[in-house]
Amino acid sequence: MALAFYYGAGSPFAWRVWLALEHKAIPYEFKLLSFSAGDLRRPEFLALNPRGKVPVIVDRDLTLYESAAIVEYLEDAYPEFGKRLFPGGLAERAIARRMVCEADNYLAPVLNRLLAHVLFTPEPDWRLDRIAAAREDLVREFDRWADARRGDFLTGHLSATDFTLYPMLALAMRCEKRKPDLALRERLPSALDQWMHGMEMLPILRKTWPPHWS
Amino acid sequence: MALAFYYGAGSPFAWRVWLALEHKAIPYEFKLLSFSAGDLRRPEFLALNPRGKVPVIVDRDLTLYESAAIVEYLEDAYPEFGKRLFPGGLAERAIARRMVCEADNYLAPVLNRLLAHVLFTPEPDWRLDRIAAAREDLVREFDRWADARRGDFLTGHLSATDFTLYPMLALAMRCEKRKPDLALRERLPSALDQWMHGMEMLPILRKTWPPHWS
Repeated sequence: MALAFYYGAGSPFAWRVWLALEHKAIPYEFKLLSFSAGDLRRPEFLALNPRGKVPVIVDRDLTLYESAAIVEYLEDAYPEFGKRLFPGGLAERAIARRMVCEADNYLAPVLNRLLAHVLFTPEPDWRLDRIAAAREDLVREFDRWADARRGDFLTGHLSATDFTLYPMLALAMRCEKRKPDLALRERLPSALDQWMHGMEMLPILRKTWPPHWS
Repeated sequence: MALAFYYGAGSPFAWRVWLALEHKAIPYEFKLLSFSAGDLRRPEFLALNPRGKVPVIVDRDLTLYESAAIVEYLEDAYPEFGKRLFPGGLAERAIARRMVCEADNYLAPVLNRLLAHVLFTPEPDWRLDRIAAAREDLVREFDRWADARRGDFLTGHLSATDFTLYPMLALAMRCEKRKPDLALRERLPSALDQWMHGMEMLPILRKTWPPHWS
């Protein structure tokens, strides 16, 4: 029985796992959940993840949530599958994991503030001071990540780090569709802009592009 | 040259790494930094971690920050050292990592709100509504963690999960010293209270107890 992958469109965490599954070419059964239909609040889903969040995978007897833990599990459980998710070298692997942690601990909270203030608040209620503060913190993160880039991909070779960061930045850019004067794309340092374009050339990125974004 | 470990008293993230080093009995040089003296803002420390946070380790050519990544590195780099930080079984290891992620992604932000409102705000400025909301969210986390406990330790055997959760809960309990009517300890489910007592019996826990808490 193939691994079951529970996904919701627009979740950067679910997108990370989708990219990891495609990168390793692990067969999976795609379970598309709808946020707006309340799929994540149904008892049968809460039985899989009591926190009611995607992604979740079910692989044989294991039910697992938290995207960073799922990515580690896929690398651990499917060593025979083609491509690695983390670098083979000890120090390089540690740096890749550090960047995954940094994205989850620093970038994701800033992104969530921007989403809350811009996407999930009706425009008449927008608090422009809060939007500006979130934008400023996000731009500061851009600069850090541009400095951290070590080659064509963040850690040199394509890895879980790229699959973690890309969905977050892509989601940030979506906020510009709602509020064009955010001018995020123009504040993206060229090292990061080039990296995003490189990511967008990957077939697995095109395949996993959120359906409702096209 | 021994691994250098940069620590600041009161950081649950630095405490996690200290416990991991002691658990594996890895030799280290202890570098005590002072938050109040501004040690974490000095250029020589920012050169190690541009985010200005502890813990940081320097091991031969590798400088590494982010506690979860450091713990993974210690397990990876010191396989010959006695005790494991993660379970040997694939599924058990995945669950342990999931719990580390949950502590960092859900418990830590709630704890930070409580600390900000109680420890880092002068008492005359306390916003009791915000303190109550943070307390309520924290109590909800207690219940989740009590449900997740699988034996004497969180994942059955002592692991990185215990070293992650314990410092966060211990720090939460410290808020009661400042504001006794928070009544957190009495809302700790017995499964979690017993686990905390079990942790407090460990020699490595006594050895790493924050100096200024005694």
